[in-house]
Amino acid sequence: MSTPVVAKEPATHDLLIGIAENHNADALVLSSLPDIRWATGFSGSNGLLIVHPDRLIFLSDGRYTEQAQREVTNAEIHTPGYALWEYVEEKSLFGDVSSVLVQADKVTVKTLHSWRERFPDIRWEEGSGLLTAHRGAKSEREVEKMRDAQAITDTVFSELCEWIEPGMTEREVSARIVYQHLLHGADKMSFDPIVASGPNGALPHARPSDRVLREGELVVIDMGCFLQGYASDMTRTIALGEPSDEARAVYNVVLEAQEASLQAARSGITGTDIDRVARTIIEEAGYGDYFGHGLGHGVGLEIHEWPRLSYHVSHNLPANAAVTVEPGIYLPDKFGVRIEDLIILHPDGHENLTQSPKALQIL
Amino acid sequence: MSTPVVAKEPATHDLLIGIAENHNADALVLSSLPDIRWATGFSGSNGLLIVHPDRLIFLSDGRYTEQAQREVTNAEIHTPGYALWEYVEEKSLFGDVSSVLVQADKVTVKTLHSWRERFPDIRWEEGSGLLTAHRGAKSEREVEKMRDAQAITDTVFSELCEWIEPGMTEREVSARIVYQHLLHGADKMSFDPIVASGPNGALPHARPSDRVLREGELVVIDMGCFLQGYASDMTRTIALGEPSDEARAVYNVVLEAQEASLQAARSGITGTDIDRVARTIIEEAGYGDYFGHGLGHGVGLEIHEWPRLSYHVSHNLPANAAVTVEPGIYLPDKFGVRIEDLIILHPDGHENLTQSPKALQIL
Repeated sequence: MSTPVVAKEPATHDLLIGIAENHNADALVLSSLPDIRWATGFSGSNGLLIVHPDRLIFLSDGRYTEQAQREVTNAEIHTPGYALWEYVEEKSLFGDVSSVLVQADKVTVKTLHSWRERFPDIRWEEGSGLLTAHRGAKSEREVEKMRDAQAITDTVFSELCEWIEPGMTEREVSARIVYQHLLHGADKMSFDPIVASGPNGALPHARPSDRVLREGELVVIDMGCFLQGYASDMTRTIALGEPSDEARAVYNVVLEAQEASLQAARSGITGTDIDRVARTIIEEAGYGDYFGHGLGHGVGLEIHEWPRLSYHVSHNLPANAAVTVEPGIYLPDKFGVRIEDLIILHPDGHENLTQSPKALQIL
Repeated sequence: MSTPVVAKEPATHDLLIGIAENHNADALVLSSLPDIRWATGFSGSNGLLIVHPDRLIFLSDGRYTEQAQREVTNAEIHTPGYALWEYVEEKSLFGDVSSVLVQADKVTVKTLHSWRERFPDIRWEEGSGLLTAHRGAKSEREVEKMRDAQAITDTVFSELCEWIEPGMTEREVSARIVYQHLLHGADKMSFDPIVASGPNGALPHARPSDRVLREGELVVIDMGCFLQGYASDMTRTIALGEPSDEARAVYNVVLEAQEASLQAARSGITGTDIDRVARTIIEEAGYGDYFGHGLGHGVGLEIHEWPRLSYHVSHNLPANAAVTVEPGIYLPDKFGVRIEDLIILHPDGHENLTQSPKALQIL
């Protein structure tokens, strides 16, 4: 985690071979697809990146010949049949390398056995979190993609405020959220939308049901999409007509906690520091028992990635990290409120990628 | 793969402990979520199943307390905080077990190291494909869910034939396919739909683009959803107005190949046998170079699972396997045709879950 911030992708050969060297290995094999995407730009479903001291070698199967040529600009491209490792052996792609670093937190026990058997003369070194810090600090190019992804989600929310109404089911609302994201150009959703009305809102991970939305209820809406590989993520809680006094009061506590955490958000502080800002406000309002999750999580090529903002996280948050800030209060059998923005941390504050209004929308 | 057909899920304690015993282990840890879902019914995103000689122990985190109690009926349920393995140690859930079988093809190198470190006195045995054959032979309950999932996809196709028209983009068609699946009750898509028009149809895994559909073109539509955990999968190729003679001729070859493979489909033959039926017809028609993938794949809790139907597969296909039959011809820069049904293999034939018509739809 102490790797210096690079904020550059696709990765350079120097950066990648440096990771191998830091682990006393001559070469590196990346096998995790999001990591390969970060390092090369390749967006397909099968790939392998061999970082040799002298060469950067990308492999995929024959389905991806054309796509790899379009997407991968920083590596040699090989797209044999499906048996990528047979090909690596046949073509002696490891050359005279004597030790290779692998992603121990990504590769299965069986797969590593098969590599060891195929190349018995190589010393296989194991490392974890090899690209975590690099992927955590976003480049401007990555931030731009996330801005575009979040803009779609903001547009969908603004339209939703026009069409959502009592009588629709959670499932209908969720289906329409997906449809609108795709029509506006999203490649896919970054997770299944949460549309949790009334008492369902008290379940932080509720799934959309056939429950009918009713007048006077709060509805928690959590949604996001992928665009060019990068995710958006936003939660808004809206009211269908006048909410109860209690709902209003809880909404205001969550809003205050969210805005105070945004005020405090910057790189260099810890996940615990920023989580505490929100948690203290919620605790002092008497709802400490009803905020049962961490304040936020990293977002990028995956919807949940490093770093996390929570009471367990004692390392300093890196500059250009993309994280969510999403406090919530969940009152069992009554309702829930969560407000979530997606932000980029800077040494002196943050950029908020989320444009949707946060004042309680009474529709 | 020689495990007897059980076709029963959730799994019994006897079946699961038998797998451990077959690998000379006292106990078994399942950590793959689809396998855990098959064995217990649990559909959440975090879980662990410990098969102890005397107990079946399901663990998940606190988010899933209620859901686990609703879904898991065949095991003890424990939902501590997030640190499931600390809890296993604290509560001595392995008791005096001396050897434990793990899923070497599912668990990462790092995770297995952490288990070995935490329980140094246990002998950790590695096995692969532990539930493959069991999951491959579907129970009637599973087939029913797949029938229901496929019925949604059939409905969406029937509606699509009414609304698709030249002038729409592939992306619009794909978005609407997703929307209709969700409105008809699908939990989510089992994969991103393929809507490949004109020359895009020649790419078997094309992604929907902003290309506008034109009169006279073929459009390959490959789509499916998850319902109650189980997937549907279907491809139809339609014509927007009168197709060319060549397109008609190719369509008829693919249709003949597909229907002949269905005629041949039954359990007890090999994947190569059935693939050869389709491949021979396509080769004899002169298109052998343009059918570059296998005939089909297993479907169930995952969209691609065991067994595969292809020229590499020499084992006998089990009774009650759910597989796709999807020959295709892809003419570069011109068009593609693929026709895919989802079927259940029986000793004397098959049940076709797919109800959509296969005669070329000219819309």
